[in-house]
This record gives sequence, structure tokens and C-alpha cells, in this order.
Amino acid sequence: MSEISALPRIRELDAYVPGLSIAEIQQKYGLSQVIKMASNENPLGASPLAQEAARRHAPSLFRYPQGGNPRLVRALADLHAVDSRRVAVGNGSDEIIDLLIRMLAEPGKHSLACFEPCFSIYPIQGRIAGVKVRRCPLEKDFSFDFDALLRLVDQSTRLVFVTTPDNPSGYCPPRGAVADLAGRLADIAPDCLLVVDEAYMDFAEDEAGASLLASGALPDNAVFLRTFSKSWGLAGLRLGYGVLPPALAEYFWRARLPFSVNILAEEAGLAALADTAFRRATLDAVRRGRATLRDGLTALGCTVWPSAANFLLFRLPPDAGSAKGCFEALLRRGIIIRPLNSYNLPEHLRVSVGDAGENAAFLAAMREILAAPEARRA
Amino acid sequence: MSEISALPRIRELDAYVPGLSIAEIQQKYGLSQVIKMASNENPLGASPLAQEAARRHAPSLFRYPQGGNPRLVRALADLHAVDSRRVAVGNGSDEIIDLLIRMLAEPGKHSLACFEPCFSIYPIQGRIAGVKVRRCPLEKDFSFDFDALLRLVDQSTRLVFVTTPDNPSGYCPPRGAVADLAGRLADIAPDCLLVVDEAYMDFAEDEAGASLLASGALPDNAVFLRTFSKSWGLAGLRLGYGVLPPALAEYFWRARLPFSVNILAEEAGLAALADTAFRRATLDAVRRGRATLRDGLTALGCTVWPSAANFLLFRLPPDAGSAKGCFEALLRRGIIIRPLNSYNLPEHLRVSVGDAGENAAFLAAMREILAAPEARRA
Repeated sequence: MSEISALPRIRELDAYVPGLSIAEIQQKYGLSQVIKMASNENPLGASPLAQEAARRHAPSLFRYPQGGNPRLVRALADLHAVDSRRVAVGNGSDEIIDLLIRMLAEPGKHSLACFEPCFSIYPIQGRIAGVKVRRCPLEKDFSFDFDALLRLVDQSTRLVFVTTPDNPSGYCPPRGAVADLAGRLADIAPDCLLVVDEAYMDFAEDEAGASLLASGALPDNAVFLRTFSKSWGLAGLRLGYGVLPPALAEYFWRARLPFSVNILAEEAGLAALADTAFRRATLDAVRRGRATLRDGLTALGCTVWPSAANFLLFRLPPDAGSAKGCFEALLRRGIIIRPLNSYNLPEHLRVSVGDAGENAAFLAAMREILAAPEARRA
Repeated sequence: MSEISALPRIRELDAYVPGLSIAEIQQKYGLSQVIKMASNENPLGASPLAQEAARRHAPSLFRYPQGGNPRLVRALADLHAVDSRRVAVGNGSDEIIDLLIRMLAEPGKHSLACFEPCFSIYPIQGRIAGVKVRRCPLEKDFSFDFDALLRLVDQSTRLVFVTTPDNPSGYCPPRGAVADLAGRLADIAPDCLLVVDEAYMDFAEDEAGASLLASGALPDNAVFLRTFSKSWGLAGLRLGYGVLPPALAEYFWRARLPFSVNILAEEAGLAALADTAFRRATLDAVRRGRATLRDGLTALGCTVWPSAANFLLFRLPPDAGSAKGCFEALLRRGIIIRPLNSYNLPEHLRVSVGDAGENAAFLAAMREILAAPEARRA
């Protein structure tokens, strides 16, 4: 009889529950149409030029991708005006996060530090890698206490993760505070990497003022992550990238699976970078929609946190029933938003910015739900 | 000054050298057309139904994939008549290989065993995971000495990798020998997994007779890997899968990055599974082309090893010059095959089966090269 078993740290991971597809939700609730405002996807869809590139390259699907993604690397280096030897590309930022942990941290010996709550991939990939995960609670207003975060760092700590703007709150610390964090971290732990995840940074009202990457003053001990999943509209193709210290980027390419970025991600990514009209329309739509949702939810008595991202964190008015009840009432009306149990925030909700019609439909449904006793029963 | 550095086992990996694209080769050698018979891609291209699915789903590129790939899992379970709880899907088989090692083997403590030479991803991902890699040389005729392989296994060994048909030789051991290996391994090391990589198995003349997976008698301690990169013609989209012991498959899904398989891989993979005409044409073309290449190379005095895969391993006749010279002479004629330095076989060459025209062009070029003194000078 076989006794094959995974390592204890793998067996301790949570059981995986696949999410429902839009088609499954339509069927389950008998809906002809579903509005998804749950996953911070692009409200305008995918760039038309990127779609066209994916269609045009369909005949090449039998070819392996070109290892090392040299064309994408050059285009991204140009976009951010950095040396191409700094650029890393992955199967979503997820792959880059996973690989950075594996490149730097020895299982059972090293640690990483991040906030609580934070993007779940940091602590999960840390646990899978056998690395000790240290968590620092966010402030009550979801801002960052960098002093407290730095107190978690000791000689065992190889990575510190910060998301800016943050998920799920949308909080964006001043650029100078992130630069200061990098400097203080270098003093405390010179061999510890600061990973600054700027997945949502381009939605900030003033990206140039908020982004340390955009400032061009790149600390020696920092990695900046960006993604094609949000403002570029390519979540389904899986394409993330990072700007790394050059020596670390070189090791990244040695350790990355040679073909992890698929051939259409590369082609559509290059086409999306050239689609400046779509990009501008996306940023406009998100900034306008974010203000509409913020004002609408506030008018309904909800508490809404300031957000520089393409989503809003909010709480229902007192006595309006549970967040779970509201989530389910929205679902029955064909609108999916994000409950935050997995972030240990069961009384908060997160809604992604949709297009103008989706935002209006969401606010109308919220008005109805908050006026009716339905939510209070759940 | 920052002192951030990757772990020693990452720094010791070979420096990464990106391969040239077909366009770059055309430019470098001033060629209008290039024939690529280097990467075991499908000689008929990508399934027309899969291409159509990729084009049809281009508007969905802004959506995240459905986590857990439930539709693909059901379709693959049907294809192989196995319980769907056994099926794992990854961003190419590469991701599954990497994750199996990380799920089972503790860095600095455990080992894996594989042949030498073998598919390079097994030992490389072992090294990245910090796992000791034990290698057993192939026999002189590239067949497998399973006794010698088993002698590498001790209580530290968590995985044994076998590719059948093998790469780069095409050697395919009898199905009974693989079953026997699984049984003996279970006796010696009950907690050690046998990974049977059947990436090329469907090209065997008698797949049903050669494949332990096809037999339906799945040992408790074995994983079977298959891929959409070869006979399904989707190398560029990155889609591999495995049939695992159910408990291990459950942990695989817990540990896998939730969106590692992109949305077009899922849609095109499902469409390819339905394209039975393309599939039959591919298998026919590869089996016929393999015989044509074998007979043609043999008639030119080359030594050709028996192959059940979509490629052939061969050596030039004595006094015909070096393999490197022949590779370069083919390249100047616009034909790319695979030199095998990275397999430690500098005097062998590997050619992938092309379509009828490509096979004829390759054999004509070989006739010319072997008749001329050019190869001897190199």
C-alpha cells in the first residue's frame, strides 16, 4: 500500500474551492445577465488591439514561445525608462512573487513580513515555500504602520511585501514614505528585499506623484511589480512583470521556467502597450466611476474608504443588515461583488469599478436593498 | 549598499541564454523561409477548432480564468476514463513537475532520481527546490536500466522520473516494465512517487499497448503526465495535465497558483479535444513522416535510433564531419534541428518530424551536406 503524502506544510493549506463561472451563476439564480464587479477587471474589457493580436496569432499556437521574452522586456524597459536588465516577466505577477520567495528564502530558516490583511498570494506562497510568515496588522483606517512592519524584521527576514495602492482598501501611502521604508529596511537588514506591488498604481489620480517606480529613484533593495491584468485588460492571459535590481533579475531568468509566459500573452501584451487610446479611456473610466460609486455609496449611508485603485472598500450603514446578506441580495439581482471573509473582514465589502451602466445598476440595486428589510433578515 | 543575493543554489544555475526566434534566424542568415524541426511541435500546426476557440474568446481576455479549471478536468477525466478527482492541470507540464517536487521533497533533506540524459526540467527544478538530484546513465542504446535506477533510491528519495517514450531518443520501454518498476519502487520506498511522463506517448504505433495510463491499471504510487504541446498542437498556450493518486491531486489543487492556466489555454484545449479529425491527421502524419525520415537518414548512412515519439535521434556516418557542422550547414539552408550539447550528446542530433514537404526538404539538404566537404570543415 502506497504511503505517498505531501509535506505537512502542503497538507495544512486550505482545501481549494473553485469559484463559480458567470455561466454557472446565471444558471443557479436563473439570470439572463450577470454583472461582475468582483475581481478588479477592466470595466472596458480588453484592448481592441490586444484582441486583434490574439486573433492574428492563433495560427502560431503550435509553436513554443520565445524563451526570455526579449521583445516584451525591451518594450517594458522603454515604458518605465529603466535598463532592460532590470525587467522580469511572469505568468501573472503571482509567478514572480512565488519565484522571488524561492530565490531568496530558505525553508525552515528564513522569514517574510507583510501586512494583515494583504493580497493572499504573499502569505500563501510563503507557507508553500516553508518560510515563516510574519504579519503586521493594518491601522484601523487601513493605512500602514511602517514602524510596526519594520519591527517584524530581523536577520532571518529576506522579503517584506507592501501593496500600494493596497488591496482591499485602496489606500495609497505617500511615495516618500515608501522610499523611507526602503532606506530604513536597508539599514536594519541589508540582505532583505522590499517588494512594492504597484498592481493598481496607474489608477491613482496622480500616478507620477504616488509611484516610487515612476519617480525613477529606484532603491537598491526594492522590486516593483506591475500587471497587465488591470488597466491593460489582460487578466485572462496572465502577464505580470517586475522591475528588479539587475543582479536579481539575472537570477530570476535563470530560475524561471523557460516558457511560463504563453505566446498570446506576449503578443497581446505588446499590442496593448501600443493601444494608448484604450489605456487613456480605461484610466478615465475608472477614475470617473470610482467617484460615482464613492458618492453614491456615501449618499446611501455607507462608509467608503478613500481608494486610489479600481475598487472601493465599504461598510453598510448601521442596522442595514449583514455584509453577507447584502452580497447575496446583490447576487440574486445578478450583480457579483466581493465579500471579504478571506481577508478576515466579514463586515466589509469590496466593489470593483464597472462601466457607467454597471455602476448605475449596482447603485440602484444597493438603494433597493438598503430600503427593503431583505438584507436585515440574512 | 544593498547586499541582496539569491540563495547559492539559485546563483549556481546556468546563465539564461534566450533562443533566437524564427524571424531573428531569417534576418541573421538572410533567409526568406525557415523550417523549424527543433522543438517537437505539431507538423500540422494547431487544431483549426482550437484556433477558432482562441479567436472567439479574444473578447474575454479581460476576465480572470475560472479557478480549478473544472470543465477541462471533466473533459480530461472522460478522455482517459479516470475519476476526475485524479486530474491536475498546469501551465504546461513544467508547472506540474515543479509543483510535485515542491509538494513532496524537503530542501536539503530529500532526493529525486532520474536518468542521464533526460528532460532537463526534472533535474533543474530539483536543484531550484534544493533537492538532491541523483542521475543514472542510460544504456549505450538509450534503453533504461531500471535496476540501476532503483539502486539510486533510498529512504531520502521522494520522486523518480521516467519519460516514455524518452526524450531525446524516442525509446519506449514495454508497459509491463514500467508497471514492474512501480511495484518494485513501492516495496523499496513506499513514500516515493514514480512520475511517468507520457508527453509523447500518443505517437507510439500502439499507444494502447505501450501506455500504462491507457491500460487503466494505475499504480497507487504513480503519476502520469501528458501535454497539449505535441499532438494537440498547443505548445504556445502552455497546457499540461497529470493523472495523480486522488489524495495527491487534492493537495496539488491546494498548492497550485489559482490562475496559472490562462483562459485561452482552457478554451482552446477543450476545442482541441473535440477536434478528432485534426488529431487523427496529426498522428497519421507523424507516424508516416517518422518512417520517411528514418528510412531516408538510414539510406544516407546515418545511425537512427528506434523512436516511438515525434522526433528521431541520429548520428552522422563515420567521416561525415561533426554534428555541429551539420547543424550549422542545415541552418544556412533555413532548416533548424536540435543539437544535443545540453544533453551531453555533442555528436548526436535530434530532428522533429515535419510535414511531408519539410521532411523532404530536410532529407534533400542532408543529402547535399553529406555529399559535400562542407560539413567536414566545420
